[in-house]
Amino acid sequence: MNSSTFSLEAAVGLVCAVRAGRPLVHCLTNHVVKNFTANALLAAGAAPAMVEHPEEAAQFAPMADALLVNLGTLEAVQMEAIRAAIAAAVAAGKPWVLDPVAVGPLAVRTAFAREISLLRPAMIRGNASEILALAGAEGRGRGVDSGVASEAAWEAGQVLARRLGTVVLVTGETDYAVDATSVVAIRGGHELLTRVTGVGCAMGALAAAICAGAPGRTLDAAVATSALLKACGSAAALVAPRPGSFAVALLDAIDGFGMETAAGRVTITPVPEA
Amino acid sequence: MNSSTFSLEAAVGLVCAVRAGRPLVHCLTNHVVKNFTANALLAAGAAPAMVEHPEEAAQFAPMADALLVNLGTLEAVQMEAIRAAIAAAVAAGKPWVLDPVAVGPLAVRTAFAREISLLRPAMIRGNASEILALAGAEGRGRGVDSGVASEAAWEAGQVLARRLGTVVLVTGETDYAVDATSVVAIRGGHELLTRVTGVGCAMGALAAAICAGAPGRTLDAAVATSALLKACGSAAALVAPRPGSFAVALLDAIDGFGMETAAGRVTITPVPEA
Amino acid sequence: MNSSTFSLEAAVGLVCAVRAGRPLVHCLTNHVVKNFTANALLAAGAAPAMVEHPEEAAQFAPMADALLVNLGTLEAVQMEAIRAAIAAAVAAGKPWVLDPVAVGPLAVRTAFAREISLLRPAMIRGNASEILALAGAEGRGRGVDSGVASEAAWEAGQVLARRLGTVVLVTGETDYAVDATSVVAIRGGHELLTRVTGVGCAMGALAAAICAGAPGRTLDAAVATSALLKACGSAAALVAPRPGSFAVALLDAIDGFGMETAAGRVTITPVPEA
Repeated sequence: MNSSTFSLEAAVGLVCAVRAGRPLVHCLTNHVVKNFTANALLAAGAAPAMVEHPEEAAQFAPMADALLVNLGTLEAVQMEAIRAAIAAAVAAGKPWVLDPVAVGPLAVRTAFAREISLLRPAMIRGNASEILALAGAEGRGRGVDSGVASEAAWEAGQVLARRLGTVVLVTGETDYAVDATSVVAIRGGHELLTRVTGVGCAMGALAAAICAGAPGRTLDAAVATSALLKACGSAAALVAPRPGSFAVALLDAIDGFGMETAAGRVTITPVPEA
Repeated sequence: MNSSTFSLEAAVGLVCAVRAGRPLVHCLTNHVVKNFTANALLAAGAAPAMVEHPEEAAQFAPMADALLVNLGTLEAVQMEAIRAAIAAAVAAGKPWVLDPVAVGPLAVRTAFAREISLLRPAMIRGNASEILALAGAEGRGRGVDSGVASEAAWEAGQVLARRLGTVVLVTGETDYAVDATSVVAIRGGHELLTRVTGVGCAMGALAAAICAGAPGRTLDAAVATSALLKACGSAAALVAPRPGSFAVALLDAIDGFGMETAAGRVTITPVPEA
Repeated sequence: MNSSTFSLEAAVGLVCAVRAGRPLVHCLTNHVVKNFTANALLAAGAAPAMVEHPEEAAQFAPMADALLVNLGTLEAVQMEAIRAAIAAAVAAGKPWVLDPVAVGPLAVRTAFAREISLLRPAMIRGNASEILALAGAEGRGRGVDSGVASEAAWEAGQVLARRLGTVVLVTGETDYAVDATSVVAIRGGHELLTRVTGVGCAMGALAAAICAGAPGRTLDAAVATSALLKACGSAAALVAPRPGSFAVALLDAIDGFGMETAAGRVTITPVPEA
């Protein structure tokens, strides 16, 4: 592990590359957050597209630069579209990100997440409960929130990373970006990030956008995604201390993101014991 | 009826109890308002979850603290999920709220609303047209708006409340909270509340959240829900006189809600003739 | 062609007539933009309704004043609802607007758009790629964005207008409203209109609302729709230079739209060579 990779400058650089590359991100995500996810991608400089018909999803995935799969409001027809899109994206060499929302207590999505997690996702983003559940441990989530702190899940994340050959981003008060050999802690952010629906889900989509421009650097992309949200959340809370206006300010902050947003608001630290 | 129950202080107390209890509200609601509903619940201190696969909806309902069923964009697969979730919620003793959006002129949802209204909802929230139609009278709604004033519907609401053993919240310029023996008028609010999509739908979800923390006090919960929206609508209109910014300010006001929001902005009056 | 028809005053008058007429617009649109579309209609003074069950869609379309069909997240069940709603709207003499999102590269929606485009839409709104593809030319769109400028598509729009007996609104940096004999260029707007998801989709819904109050004047309605968005986009960018707050300011500007919004911000010019 080259710790200099995990500088704030490098993370900001990967995020800002989205503006230059304008990746097209195919999102198969949940109904609650489609609008916010699309706006978060647009704010970051990416282009969103939600093509959901199973036939079209298969046709579209190779045209896009990356794919997000989020299980928040999974239904039978969406499962079909997801399988088709992943197969097409993988065949075309496009990265895909899995967001296993509420996996653990709910049977259909838990079995489905385990099935598709074998299809070589570039990254898995989840809270501690979801990562523990996906790794086979007993989570304690009830809804979309984690019942456990992210500290308790990075080891499970590394088990997953090794088993699946993927990168895992465990999000919480501290985020952990994990691959087979490294664990990086990203700190910063603001409690209001948990008071707006879809922030975590938008992170998955932003991660896909960043991965599209960083082939072979998925762990760096996970660190960059985390740094982006933590810095922008902290900056937005300064101007908007309540959740309605905070959501608006968060999109504005993503649009304006740069070193001046990130400096002093985020720390990126390799976890030595990993 | 103990009229002291219907003090503004009591209503504010029930709303603020949501922050302490952080109820998890399972929402089976329409596509237009899922994001706003989730954000309204988060602003009030509750936790939203939209689990829509029929199998998972049945599994999830007992894990949640309350269930909202809103028929705005009813489809066949959602009908299946709704039936399963209600059965599971009722079996687990969890309260559920019915929002019979546009019932009356539309055949599928009207028959479906009549069917599920027999399954012991804790509360039914609707506009005058919807309540009249559900009670079997001839409504005059065309879309999601009522063609009649709420004054014309509280008697129909009481017919429903007695027939179904439920509480009815008829919303309009004046709201009426109705059970078998009492009718309470809640006045206040602002016209901008009708210029943002999903305010009424979010009310149903907030009602479910408040019910979760007020077992046996569903009429009080209906009064509190109404007072919350009327007070916050009035407060938000002061800072944001146009609908785009009003929607944002409304969420901020829900986040900051307390006696200082409600005082002087809402009146709660038992209707003596009831 | 009476060029005096295309004055800014006439366009503003048609938009403001929506407030007086309060048309009910039945929207069968994509999941990403349902909330924003409903709020845009409400801001303009119209009433939105999204009735999606195929049986109910057929029942509801004649009750509404206009129908919007947007193919953004087309699925099998929605195709059924769209066919039923169009048939009922046409039978009842209600105008309908087609928004052929991402038609061209995606097979299912392209065949479907060609099929329903024969059912006498009052207006078709699309970007250059979509209009070229629908006319049978080779488009270059990849996702929801056009790969070509609108200048390159107004001739294809006129081919469509003549073939289908419809009005075509080609949107881009310059918008072109086209019927069998006239082409009108509408200039103004702001780049931020492309940084918020659903602005184009909301345009389709607003076009339907304006058509409802302008029978026999569909070309004027297209010009008015374009002028509304270009003027409000330009006005909103003045107060909100980033996309999160711009989306909010855009709704506020639609709410306050009038000559003072439009004057100096939009030019409406007949294209002589047409």
